[in-house]
Amino acid sequence: MSFDYAPFFRADLPPAAVRWSGFPEYNFVGGHNDADGVPVEALATALTNVMQRDGKRLATYGMGYGALGYGPLRDSIAAMLEARAGMATDPDNILITTGSLQGLDLVNGALLAPGDTVIVEDVSYGGALSRMRGLGVDYVGITVDEDGMRMDHLAEVLAAQKQNGVRPKYIYTIPTVQNPSGTVLTVQRRRDLLDLAVEYGVPIFEDDCYADLLWDGERPATIRSMDQTGQVIYCGSFSKSIAPALRIGYVVADWPVLSRIIPLKSDGGCGALEQMALAEYCPSQFDGHVDELQTLLRGKCTVMVNALEEQFGAAAEFSAPKGGIFIWVTLPETVDTDQLAKAAAAQGVLINPGSEWSADADSGRRRLRLCFGHPSHETIRGGVARLAEICHAEFGVPVRGANVER
Amino acid sequence: MSFDYAPFFRADLPPAAVRWSGFPEYNFVGGHNDADGVPVEALATALTNVMQRDGKRLATYGMGYGALGYGPLRDSIAAMLEARAGMATDPDNILITTGSLQGLDLVNGALLAPGDTVIVEDVSYGGALSRMRGLGVDYVGITVDEDGMRMDHLAEVLAAQKQNGVRPKYIYTIPTVQNPSGTVLTVQRRRDLLDLAVEYGVPIFEDDCYADLLWDGERPATIRSMDQTGQVIYCGSFSKSIAPALRIGYVVADWPVLSRIIPLKSDGGCGALEQMALAEYCPSQFDGHVDELQTLLRGKCTVMVNALEEQFGAAAEFSAPKGGIFIWVTLPETVDTDQLAKAAAAQGVLINPGSEWSADADSGRRRLRLCFGHPSHETIRGGVARLAEICHAEFGVPVRGANVER
Repeated sequence: MSFDYAPFFRADLPPAAVRWSGFPEYNFVGGHNDADGVPVEALATALTNVMQRDGKRLATYGMGYGALGYGPLRDSIAAMLEARAGMATDPDNILITTGSLQGLDLVNGALLAPGDTVIVEDVSYGGALSRMRGLGVDYVGITVDEDGMRMDHLAEVLAAQKQNGVRPKYIYTIPTVQNPSGTVLTVQRRRDLLDLAVEYGVPIFEDDCYADLLWDGERPATIRSMDQTGQVIYCGSFSKSIAPALRIGYVVADWPVLSRIIPLKSDGGCGALEQMALAEYCPSQFDGHVDELQTLLRGKCTVMVNALEEQFGAAAEFSAPKGGIFIWVTLPETVDTDQLAKAAAAQGVLINPGSEWSADADSGRRRLRLCFGHPSHETIRGGVARLAEICHAEFGVPVRGANVER
Repeated sequence: MSFDYAPFFRADLPPAAVRWSGFPEYNFVGGHNDADGVPVEALATALTNVMQRDGKRLATYGMGYGALGYGPLRDSIAAMLEARAGMATDPDNILITTGSLQGLDLVNGALLAPGDTVIVEDVSYGGALSRMRGLGVDYVGITVDEDGMRMDHLAEVLAAQKQNGVRPKYIYTIPTVQNPSGTVLTVQRRRDLLDLAVEYGVPIFEDDCYADLLWDGERPATIRSMDQTGQVIYCGSFSKSIAPALRIGYVVADWPVLSRIIPLKSDGGCGALEQMALAEYCPSQFDGHVDELQTLLRGKCTVMVNALEEQFGAAAEFSAPKGGIFIWVTLPETVDTDQLAKAAAAQGVLINPGSEWSADADSGRRRLRLCFGHPSHETIRGGVARLAEICHAEFGVPVRGANVER
């Protein structure tokens, strides 16, 4: 007989996990990346080199660098942020985190309490929105167009909130390769966003974890680089640019913020081998690697776009993303993507229904997010064809698909 | 001017962190290990090997093994627990965590709510006690003697709590190389502990993270190995046996518990390189490595014991620990180790005052914990000599020290 834990669990736990059963045949969810795009050998070599020099530091928590993380990695990140994102950064303003996910949890842990309000883009990262809901925080969505968050709408919302005595805890934005829209906030809007944040006295939380994968156009300066007062908290990650399983991200913020976040990071530090390998690898190889990875992902993006056009025709509306690993698709009004996602999962096709990626869940009901970083060209084509068949069977659209009259 | 975050922070945050300023000259705190005891080269070689075979898995979150962690590492841990700790374990009952610290946080997150009560050993791991206080949880301490937690006292407390309608959420124990006492709970007491837990329907949380460092006597079977119903939740770690900076620990529990813990682990997994390196390294090299490490630590323990006897004489009471990296010392009643710790820190000597390692802080006021895993023999001797001088200056004891009449 099993011991009964029911009386012992907290009453407010999330639903129980289900046992892992492997990836399905067509996996279009999750921030996985291309298996051939991981610099496996170079990372192993980098680690071997740095271990010879610095391996004894493994004997101490924090490798002798304290809670912020491995010093040489913070130096590397600072150099990359300056060169690639136009952001001069003191390495002591960088906290290494277990992916940007821990960064979100730590920033939220310091700032958000039940009943608080935050501002988000009206389509946004599902994991950020679910975290806010889990914390009992309300979010208000700002319209996103092809140039990112619309500043006229943001100004309206901030004015209305002020009128109502609401001071949002932060404005959460993914300005570069926005998740899920794939858009890039223009430089002018970045300036306007910071101006509005200053005017209303609201922090900005800038999540830049896809920015290294921008292939269409120049990478704009970060919003934090335009800020002289520490009003912008920034986070980034190596999950998309190197490998998600490494679990190395970072928060960039001024000390008054970092000093309140650090005590919440109760895990004794992030993995040393990842930090050491990246510190050694990045200065000489990151830029070249990311160029190759972009080419690879751009090719997959093209395959995805072509497959959608071929299988869904006019039934699927979308803009090709400017980088990254996902595409945001709008289907006809008759389609409910929550229902589609369920039907597709039953047939081995995983998709993100738009409701989970939308501040207003209802407005996302005919939208979906498809990730193309991990599947092969062939899998993308096969999966989109199967998705079109399922969508046709459930909703009668697309009318034609897979070169077959339905 | 700096942006003012004061109105934005949660009201219940812990105190702000202070900037890292490096380790002091004599560092007798923290679970650091011997720098020469880290198998640096072997870990790098192991990682290179496993990366050649399995490196492409880095492209997916969880490396294709889901939330529990890298499959081959869970297999290795299961094999080691069976061989070394007499505990047959299904690898699917093992959750890889960021050190055992994340294990503590996850188990606490699932079980503990403000106002709850738990049972602990009356001297216990300071980080466990501070976590409980932070969660608003009351703890009751059970006397520890040279054979570990006393079962007569536990029986008394459980009976009294039942009488008062209190059902503790768990009994937290570090049975093998107890922190800080260095004692080992006898097999008979382990059986009695489980019997009492069953009688009163209370889960046991068995923290076994020092057990691999036991050098005095045979390692007893774990309490969880005696339990057929899942009533015991177990955690372990590679921090002490391999290196603290790796940040790999694990929780062993039945699925009804793991399934509620997994959703609280919101960080997207633990570091892949650590998991891969350990999975490759452990099956062939862990046992031999730990034998060598024990010899090394036992040598340092002897240096510490001798230094204490030489410098403090009869003023310091202690039992040599049966393994591990720390010693628990009792000084004369006139000494207040909170004050001693402050005075010592100002002179480059860090110690853990006993109040932080005691369920009843007052009863720890003349005690202290000294960690000897990291400092060299010379540093141990020099630091204990300086500590004796400071203690003499503050409290007049030891009367004689450092071969000098004081």
